Amino acid sequence: MSKIRIGIAGYGNLGKGVEMAIRQNDDMELVCVFTRRDPASVSIKTPGVEVVSMDDMASMKDKIDVVILCGGSATDLPEQTPAVAKYFPVIDSFDTHANIPVHFANVDKVCKENGTIAMISVGWDPGMFSLNRIYAESILRQGSTYTFWGKGVSQGHSDAIRRIKGVKNAIQYTVPVEAALEAVRNCENPELTTRQKHTRECYVVAEEGADKAAIEAEIVNMPNYFSDYDTTVTFMEEDEFKATHNKMPHGGFVMRSGVTGAGTNQMIEYSLKLGSNPEFTACVLVAYARAAARMVAEGQTGARTVFDVAPSYLSPLSGEELRAHLL
Amino acid sequence: MSKIRIGIAGYGNLGKGVEMAIRQNDDMELVCVFTRRDPASVSIKTPGVEVVSMDDMASMKDKIDVVILCGGSATDLPEQTPAVAKYFPVIDSFDTHANIPVHFANVDKVCKENGTIAMISVGWDPGMFSLNRIYAESILRQGSTYTFWGKGVSQGHSDAIRRIKGVKNAIQYTVPVEAALEAVRNCENPELTTRQKHTRECYVVAEEGADKAAIEAEIVNMPNYFSDYDTTVTFMEEDEFKATHNKMPHGGFVMRSGVTGAGTNQMIEYSLKLGSNPEFTACVLVAYARAAARMVAEGQTGARTVFDVAPSYLSPLSGEELRAHLL
Repeated sequence: MSKIRIGIAGYGNLGKGVEMAIRQNDDMELVCVFTRRDPASVSIKTPGVEVVSMDDMASMKDKIDVVILCGGSATDLPEQTPAVAKYFPVIDSFDTHANIPVHFANVDKVCKENGTIAMISVGWDPGMFSLNRIYAESILRQGSTYTFWGKGVSQGHSDAIRRIKGVKNAIQYTVPVEAALEAVRNCENPELTTRQKHTRECYVVAEEGADKAAIEAEIVNMPNYFSDYDTTVTFMEEDEFKATHNKMPHGGFVMRSGVTGAGTNQMIEYSLKLGSNPEFTACVLVAYARAAARMVAEGQTGARTVFDVAPSYLSPLSGEELRAHLL
Repeated sequence: MSKIRIGIAGYGNLGKGVEMAIRQNDDMELVCVFTRRDPASVSIKTPGVEVVSMDDMASMKDKIDVVILCGGSATDLPEQTPAVAKYFPVIDSFDTHANIPVHFANVDKVCKENGTIAMISVGWDPGMFSLNRIYAESILRQGSTYTFWGKGVSQGHSDAIRRIKGVKNAIQYTVPVEAALEAVRNCENPELTTRQKHTRECYVVAEEGADKAAIEAEIVNMPNYFSDYDTTVTFMEEDEFKATHNKMPHGGFVMRSGVTGAGTNQMIEYSLKLGSNPEFTACVLVAYARAAARMVAEGQTGARTVFDVAPSYLSPLSGEELRAHLL
């Protein structure tokens, strides 16, 4: 059987993660990287991969089966996904939860007009966490669902600290509160405030001579980002910072505490402990690229989310193999 | 919209669990219980439910949308599922893993000949655990998957103890070894023997004057059931036994420890802590009955497993609601 030919759009951390994930799937091959930079300036690790300007995407129409978009949700994907869906089956990791309905509608329209398919909001939240929410809530109809994030790096919060005057470098970890996790696990159905669910740990390198007390005060009192949380700020030297905070770990928990029959407690818990957030997200994108290729072969068109994809579409194994070995 | 009309076949612990689960789903109604006993002898808790002999099942053809089979995998389901699939869309919880391929083929043939649909092996293992295995293995292509069971009651092992001479009553709990769980969580990829994964805890009421030392020796040395495990045997009085061991808890863990990129550890863990095994299994069966009704409406026929069902089919919510609230 011929391999699924993948194009990557955007060659940052996520795009490089997709490149590495494709190497772990021998029914796929990376054919092309699309970039907004000068293609001549982009060097791809995998041999034989073309680098093509985003402006010339349509020229690759017959050489690629699925395009995986690796841009950001703030400005890239709202434009890119509908634009690319004109020509290619496409996967994105659009993660601005509040804007998903609008994004879905925009992409669905383009897909139907052009006979293509798109899977939006693929990753782990939205993505694997969403799947666990829908399965758990469909099974345990009476109950409470909790989502916790971390321990992991929040880029948005790290950026907010780095914009403070006197800050040279900074990273922020979101950390779930262990006591809250335990209360949920014990089926206590707690009502949890923002502060009770997560703490925020900040590691900061200050500019020489900067007022550290002022920086700390500005962080912990920052509205929306930190003022609703218990926040700790630790200053450190740049060498130590670079040696200890150079990874992008993340993860979290989806838990549903339910009641069945005459008051029987039932507990479902799903958790991820990710050494690298972008590398894991990339693996999810690649599995859904396989699903997209199969749905295209069936003649399906339109926008999809993880909710619309039967699990068997994600696996390289046949139905017989799945039933014999994984069921 | 009219409600999904459900028939239950078999009114033991699982059947009663399905009855209770249907009450938590307001898009469904219990119409009928099929029994092998004299229908006049079976009293159903829900008002207005017909009790019909299994022999007269076909007479209910136009009154029921989906039949949920609540019999056992050893002798009931291999006969019942294909027989019932002649007339009705049907769900079963067939859980003899090694015989799933044959059971699937038998049921699939009947479904296709009669234009019906069947979902086999629905529950938590096979079922929710299978789903977690396929998702985790499709995403983390390089890695190891571990399944642990418990703490929970094994009916088969409890029965084996009760057959020993001098045993009046007994229950057996399968318990995962905490050190093994921790080694997996720490991405140590341990190779675990049977003994290293689970222990077996037995609680026994002996007949008066029975030789307890002999009973204990017979249990711990029993081949297949206990000799490969570290087994503890605790004798107790009948009153205490009845007061403390009258529930059917179960649960377990599916874990996948994977490696991405250049040696990054990634960990996925799913766990269930079930106050009642039959009540939880019943909830899963009911969610898949909803999926079956929808697939019938689409004109689908044939045998299916949880691998073949897109998650959106399980939820009473619309696609718009799911994307807005659960994605």
